Amino acid sequence: MTTTRVLVDGSPGLSVRADDRGLLYGDGLFETCALRDGRPLLWARHLDRLALGCQRLGLPAPDREVLTRESLGLCAAVRRGVLKLLLTRGRGGRGYRPPAVPTPTRIVSLHPLPDYPPSFWTDGIELRVCATPLGDNPRLAGVKHLNRLEQVLARGEWDDPAVPEGLMLDTRGRVVEGTMSNVFAVTRGGLLTPALERCGVAGVMREEVLALAADLAIPARIGEVSLADLAAADEVLVTNSLIGLWPVRRVAGRSLAPGPMARRLLEALRRRGAV
Amino acid sequence: MTTTRVLVDGSPGLSVRADDRGLLYGDGLFETCALRDGRPLLWARHLDRLALGCQRLGLPAPDREVLTRESLGLCAAVRRGVLKLLLTRGRGGRGYRPPAVPTPTRIVSLHPLPDYPPSFWTDGIELRVCATPLGDNPRLAGVKHLNRLEQVLARGEWDDPAVPEGLMLDTRGRVVEGTMSNVFAVTRGGLLTPALERCGVAGVMREEVLALAADLAIPARIGEVSLADLAAADEVLVTNSLIGLWPVRRVAGRSLAPGPMARRLLEALRRRGAV
Repeated sequence: MTTTRVLVDGSPGLSVRADDRGLLYGDGLFETCALRDGRPLLWARHLDRLALGCQRLGLPAPDREVLTRESLGLCAAVRRGVLKLLLTRGRGGRGYRPPAVPTPTRIVSLHPLPDYPPSFWTDGIELRVCATPLGDNPRLAGVKHLNRLEQVLARGEWDDPAVPEGLMLDTRGRVVEGTMSNVFAVTRGGLLTPALERCGVAGVMREEVLALAADLAIPARIGEVSLADLAAADEVLVTNSLIGLWPVRRVAGRSLAPGPMARRLLEALRRRGAV
Repeated sequence: MTTTRVLVDGSPGLSVRADDRGLLYGDGLFETCALRDGRPLLWARHLDRLALGCQRLGLPAPDREVLTRESLGLCAAVRRGVLKLLLTRGRGGRGYRPPAVPTPTRIVSLHPLPDYPPSFWTDGIELRVCATPLGDNPRLAGVKHLNRLEQVLARGEWDDPAVPEGLMLDTRGRVVEGTMSNVFAVTRGGLLTPALERCGVAGVMREEVLALAADLAIPARIGEVSLADLAAADEVLVTNSLIGLWPVRRVAGRSLAPGPMARRLLEALRRRGAV
């Protein structure tokens, strides 16, 4: 797949209005889904998160059937790829005040799957630590909204294709997530992942891994995580909807080997059809 | 003036590409200028701040002459109105990583002046306190970027046209700014305004008022400001490029009368052609 295809409010189109609040204020949400054989993976989880995000931002939730029909139509002939959903509060006058009854803009688009080397899954990745922090805001924490300048600045800090991901800390130096992934530490056979009540994005694959851990009776804890926790862990993993899971082979000055937890979770995710 | 006019990259147009990073990530900046008799006010300050914002976000600064020519062309027949400049990092593939050599998108648009009652300038306004906090992020503080969900959520908290502005606090409860304005406390003939090193937007009118204070030998301090400081002040003022300055007649449970500082500054701003 090399051509990108886009539906704007259900019709083929390549543009949005210049007064769309998505552009003016980042006033909206998005979802990024892996496609396999014409179907977006973890589709119900993506729709659930989008609906939850709408609730958090005070947006009317989109019709799940409409989104599903448009997405399946766009994906029909695609064996592997990326489906992106983007929803904004729609057009509005100048000024922050949201319209009482917004007419959201809905964009569904197809993209090629990123071309990562297979070694990222088998041998692990180097995870650099970014200088750009994530600001605290409980009102926005967890939501996959369109205010993503922190991630853009963090991802702009390095330019080495051999380093696919960077770790982001909050303003007090606690570990939150990767620029495009969530992070897990594995210690004594259990999982620890940062709480996302003050900042960060609650990833769909993070939810899936936590659900999987519950199914497999793997202890999992959500809490405060420091760089020292990562450096002391038996394994470190990053997760997102496109990659599923990558083991980390280097972080915070420490080298790690991909371990049994990464392999076990990745195999289970594949069996579940989550990746 | 009732029709809105828009130039996108110098050409009349009403739309931007759906893959513009301004829409995808709020990856850009904007300026809002008051228009008077065909000319944007405080134009050099607006261009300076835009250039500084570009530097902060790693964007190539737009050509001042091009922006000036486009803006003056658009404003030519307009007696009073609002000119908005919006600059994004332009188109890009999926993914946060900014392109090494971006081709920014530039939008210049005309809007009607908001229709506020004259009493807001003479009798003052009620300033409510918003529940939505401003998250700390030194990397983005001060910049008028397109990540404005905090302001959108704060402005969505109330719906009373008699209350034109809300005060925003940081996550520790310190005063930062209004949703669309900066704030000053007046105590013993001097000005105090919040430092904007961790969050907030460094408004062009705030800069102008600070410059004016220096010219008039009015002591002005930038520092930490609490709600108690506002409640204990002789006067409280809010400023932005469109309103110039409004006295506050009610904030944090306290009633105030518009005082001599508000009148003096507003008269001086008018004499300087800043409003």
